[in-house]
Amino acid sequence: MSLAAVKIILVEPQGPLNVGSVARGMKNMGLQQLVLVNPQCDRLSAEARQMAVHAADLLEAAQEVATLPEALQGCQRAIATTGRSDTTLPIPLEHPRTALPWLLEIEPAKTSSALIFGREDRGLTNEELNYAQRLVFIPAHADYSSLNLAQAVAICCYELQVAAANFSSPSHLPISLSPPADLAPLDAIEAFYRQLEQLLLEIGYLFPHTVASRMEKFRRLLNRAYPSATEVAMLRGILRQVAWALAKKENG
Amino acid sequence: MSLAAVKIILVEPQGPLNVGSVARGMKNMGLQQLVLVNPQCDRLSAEARQMAVHAADLLEAAQEVATLPEALQGCQRAIATTGRSDTTLPIPLEHPRTALPWLLEIEPAKTSSALIFGREDRGLTNEELNYAQRLVFIPAHADYSSLNLAQAVAICCYELQVAAANFSSPSHLPISLSPPADLAPLDAIEAFYRQLEQLLLEIGYLFPHTVASRMEKFRRLLNRAYPSATEVAMLRGILRQVAWALAKKENG
Repeated sequence: MSLAAVKIILVEPQGPLNVGSVARGMKNMGLQQLVLVNPQCDRLSAEARQMAVHAADLLEAAQEVATLPEALQGCQRAIATTGRSDTTLPIPLEHPRTALPWLLEIEPAKTSSALIFGREDRGLTNEELNYAQRLVFIPAHADYSSLNLAQAVAICCYELQVAAANFSSPSHLPISLSPPADLAPLDAIEAFYRQLEQLLLEIGYLFPHTVASRMEKFRRLLNRAYPSATEVAMLRGILRQVAWALAKKENG
Repeated sequence: MSLAAVKIILVEPQGPLNVGSVARGMKNMGLQQLVLVNPQCDRLSAEARQMAVHAADLLEAAQEVATLPEALQGCQRAIATTGRSDTTLPIPLEHPRTALPWLLEIEPAKTSSALIFGREDRGLTNEELNYAQRLVFIPAHADYSSLNLAQAVAICCYELQVAAANFSSPSHLPISLSPPADLAPLDAIEAFYRQLEQLLLEIGYLFPHTVASRMEKFRRLLNRAYPSATEVAMLRGILRQVAWALAKKENG
């Protein structure tokens, strides 16, 4: 299963800005092979490079061919994308999340997979769609269902990358969601609560009969934050400073 | 649960092509509210309209504000996006698929959610990141991990749309304890921070040159706790009482 084995095929792309943006979106997600079928613009133009930014290497290495069958040479699996949802389509439409991982289930040393995108204005013809084994439709809002080519590629490359990372459950996160490393010792937290309670009684915010229920509310709030030792020391510093300011006004 | 209740906030966007592309990607996925914070380009320029195509209505309806807090007014939940994965970040990074559905779990008639994107070149500052309760990092390849702004927005809007369509289980939070049902509105939390800052300056705990870094530490702590409206009201009540006690000692 390898992202590098997936080719992105653009059929007759017209906009150099789009082609450059496609290269960037691919490289961002770890895809490398770009194939242009009969391109209607210059993939090495200043406009294309402007949008590719640090993915100009993908533009330079891109393959240009005359027909879709040539682009598909050496591929074992192909999925075509379409923005049409009409019923004259040759095969059923699938959601990107369901269908795209299938492109990764190949032996990358031996073969490759292809994901095909059509022209900006007219997409792929029925004949072109028939070269693919599966069809993907990116769900979109009825008010405006036509996606920009580069955004459609970016969304599909993102889905491929998430699938490749074997993102299965929400617990698989890029970075561990652990609380702060220097979690405050419980006795420091208790000392803070005692200090807070004393101050709140002194200023008349708490009364002896409301102490217990009110302090419980603070505990719930602070517990949820998993405070660090530094943070508890900071909170205690504030309480000391408030007590000091009160005493100073009293005596001064 | 409604896509229309999610605002996309762009902080100081520089490229009109990007802003136009963002509008298109949003409308494709059923999002409507675009907010620009101190934009560095003209959202109604020919370039922006060229990329928006049939989403020019979103550009026209977009709100322009001077600061991020203004953009967040009326929002109950905010997620910021970052392309940085360093360890100095205030809160843990989460995968878009895990975190974004949380923006939809609000009552759209009453409030809204925000998804914040930074500048094309520098993203969001640490201070700006601290306005959000959660941070999202779109996983990207180490060779080129910086996504184009409009593609990042398109990927997030796509994830939101998929979540809205298949909404089944509530999203998981970074900590196992579930947050309160009546999560405090962000403007109430901001009012608390302003009140705290003023008091801490008054009692000499903070000095003008330490305000920013110290207040950032409070934000991190409180954000992790997901305070409820009641809890924020309680914290503000304490601050009022402290101020009252100080004034009383002064005058008495």
